[in-house]
Amino acid sequence: MSGEELLLRRCKFVLVGDGWVLRDVNVVVRDGVIASVGEEVDKSGLVLDCSDKVVIPGLVNSHTHAAMTLLRGYCDDAELFGWLKRIWRVEARLTPRIVYLASKLAIYEMLSSGTTAFVDMYFYPEETAKAAEELGIRAALGPPIIEGVGELEGSVARAKSFVKDFGRSRLIVPILNVHSIHACSRETLEAVAELSRELEVKVHIHVSETRREVFECKKKYGLFPVEYLDRLGVLSDRCILVHLGWVTSWEIELIREKGACVVHCPSSNTKLATAGFFPFKEMVRSGIAVGLGTDGPASNNTLDMIREMRMAVLLQRNNYWDVDVNAADAFRAATLNGGAILGVRVGSVEEGYLADLALLDAYSVRLQPLRADNLLSAIVYSASGADVVATVVDGRLVYDREDEEKIARWREEVRRIAEELNKFMASIAGQ
Amino acid sequence: MSGEELLLRRCKFVLVGDGWVLRDVNVVVRDGVIASVGEEVDKSGLVLDCSDKVVIPGLVNSHTHAAMTLLRGYCDDAELFGWLKRIWRVEARLTPRIVYLASKLAIYEMLSSGTTAFVDMYFYPEETAKAAEELGIRAALGPPIIEGVGELEGSVARAKSFVKDFGRSRLIVPILNVHSIHACSRETLEAVAELSRELEVKVHIHVSETRREVFECKKKYGLFPVEYLDRLGVLSDRCILVHLGWVTSWEIELIREKGACVVHCPSSNTKLATAGFFPFKEMVRSGIAVGLGTDGPASNNTLDMIREMRMAVLLQRNNYWDVDVNAADAFRAATLNGGAILGVRVGSVEEGYLADLALLDAYSVRLQPLRADNLLSAIVYSASGADVVATVVDGRLVYDREDEEKIARWREEVRRIAEELNKFMASIAGQ
Repeated sequence: MSGEELLLRRCKFVLVGDGWVLRDVNVVVRDGVIASVGEEVDKSGLVLDCSDKVVIPGLVNSHTHAAMTLLRGYCDDAELFGWLKRIWRVEARLTPRIVYLASKLAIYEMLSSGTTAFVDMYFYPEETAKAAEELGIRAALGPPIIEGVGELEGSVARAKSFVKDFGRSRLIVPILNVHSIHACSRETLEAVAELSRELEVKVHIHVSETRREVFECKKKYGLFPVEYLDRLGVLSDRCILVHLGWVTSWEIELIREKGACVVHCPSSNTKLATAGFFPFKEMVRSGIAVGLGTDGPASNNTLDMIREMRMAVLLQRNNYWDVDVNAADAFRAATLNGGAILGVRVGSVEEGYLADLALLDAYSVRLQPLRADNLLSAIVYSASGADVVATVVDGRLVYDREDEEKIARWREEVRRIAEELNKFMASIAGQ
Repeated sequence: MSGEELLLRRCKFVLVGDGWVLRDVNVVVRDGVIASVGEEVDKSGLVLDCSDKVVIPGLVNSHTHAAMTLLRGYCDDAELFGWLKRIWRVEARLTPRIVYLASKLAIYEMLSSGTTAFVDMYFYPEETAKAAEELGIRAALGPPIIEGVGELEGSVARAKSFVKDFGRSRLIVPILNVHSIHACSRETLEAVAELSRELEVKVHIHVSETRREVFECKKKYGLFPVEYLDRLGVLSDRCILVHLGWVTSWEIELIREKGACVVHCPSSNTKLATAGFFPFKEMVRSGIAVGLGTDGPASNNTLDMIREMRMAVLLQRNNYWDVDVNAADAFRAATLNGGAILGVRVGSVEEGYLADLALLDAYSVRLQPLRADNLLSAIVYSASGADVVATVVDGRLVYDREDEEKIARWREEVRRIAEELNKFMASIAGQ
């Protein structure tokens, strides 16, 4: 692992942003920030020969539940509400240690597939934060704010102390995590709105994921979910709204007006058969920042953002019956828009951006024949997370496939973690 | 590369078929055939330690145009008919050498992602056959049968000579390749039907891929595409019908009656926005053998059958709004049903089946925590083609990631091929 000075030398290709390709340039990183992209050479820190590599901005997974690696493949064949029932039964038994281990497993998978930041919602976020800081990935995290009047005060206090504890971390972005309008009362949502204003942190919430949620919200409150959130004062430019498979056109207008961000999770929505139709084009045309998320590995079942970009385009083309949504849209969603969602300057390989980068093997068979003109296509449609050979977060080389010793250590730890998680799952089954 | 005697020793898991898992068993291969799966040990040939591996049946890509690796990322944002126009312009310039090189590239990608057989439709199939035999993959191939009366005799003669030349090959299955009802005349289709009966070989054809095809067929002949094929005598148990996104319920009944096989290509259909809805459930319930295909790498843009299995389930769940289609359906489509389509006994890790196998890394981070009860899920939803560490076709170890010398040679050849294909593309652009 390097310090925060880094030279990526003679990069075969740099995919600066969607469709903007440079060849044979150097990327100089100082203090964790991209200092130049071009001819400058600065060998004061670590030097990586990139003549056989493609450099892209690190990918931002804008919605996940990382520690749900624990539940990967545990319940694949249920729709959302039945699925949640089974999942919540296991989650009631979670311990901080299990969340720590399962988060580490997730972070190994993310770093090794080019993801440099993730927005997470799960129990014991301090455990996930610990794992993120240890392994060097960026993460937006916060305690789940739970239902019930007596409990609410405790939740608010926990959220405040989390913001205090992690507010100055270089890697952790504190946020407020609220499950959904169907799992939280009106009072809780109002308290969250107030807290978000007070602490100036973002609110991360599942919205309009299923038809049933929309139906029940309309029946109970006479409002659609986004309207309801707006009425309670939750909707603002600090909001990260996830799913929106059943959103209406006038709710899109509300989202735009208030400046909220949204996240599309195509694999999870299809796998859980939530149906609906995330209106990607309408969102983008309204100027809303659309991010991409894998959702938790129990409903995906991977954390591979490259696969998610491909899935996003393919699903949109299936649903719209046209080819308007393309590789550039998906790439922007997974990079620059992810930066907007995090509120951090990442998502482009340009001077002044934080040095969150992924390096891919330019000679991977899957990507051939590779050229500047089909590079973006190769990354979005043809690449696999496994083509990533190195990952840089905040200027530090946190994953390097060529570092055999470290890879062997990771592999051994992955093996130990998997064993412990399997033991935990067996103990649950026995109860 | 080994001979055809092989011992896979102490396999951590064997996924025999959909959902049937064995642990800690040996797989003995003799003369290219699986001789036993269990406790037997036979060290007369090559011995592979599989204590950290998962053994699955090799995957069958039931529809592709392998040499279209040449056109990967060349035209990503067009619907089928516009796309074909651009593609056909390049294809008019194809040479046997380019097809040979592009086929090799495709086969490297297929073998390294666990695909052991493919059904191909492309120009200069003898070049693809040569590449397949050199690299040791199984392939169903045949000359494209082209339009026009004068030409038809030549096409029939070429098809006959291809069947004669390759009929006895262990790896090549000769077939008749007919593009579609919209690109072939009635006379051509009738000639193909006759030839298929005479030579006892399968007919491989794109059908009901777009709404426009169905509309024009109905207008011209008063029949839906499958009805039309039936009327011309093409529809039989030697038929491989590809796409069927716009098939009707009574055409499904016809397909079942005649015993034809079908192939679903979910990535290609979504990427080209052909819309429609491949009725997977209705097909399977009718007892029709449904296979899976990537289609060509210009409309996918990979040849990764693991990704295709995942895509199949996800797309079906999106379209049906329920979770009925599951991992087992996709796995069967990519293995046993692929065997039925090829007409070759592959697709299961059982005594008597041909030894076409893929070995995956049981400790890949993406698959953890792995257990017997989530193994099928891990393969279909979580794995990537890159988790394949070795591939066996016809009992021969044709890909082995641990064989560093051979991998370096492959890598060097991939690089050379990519360069030559890029030069060819540049020469086309200049004309």
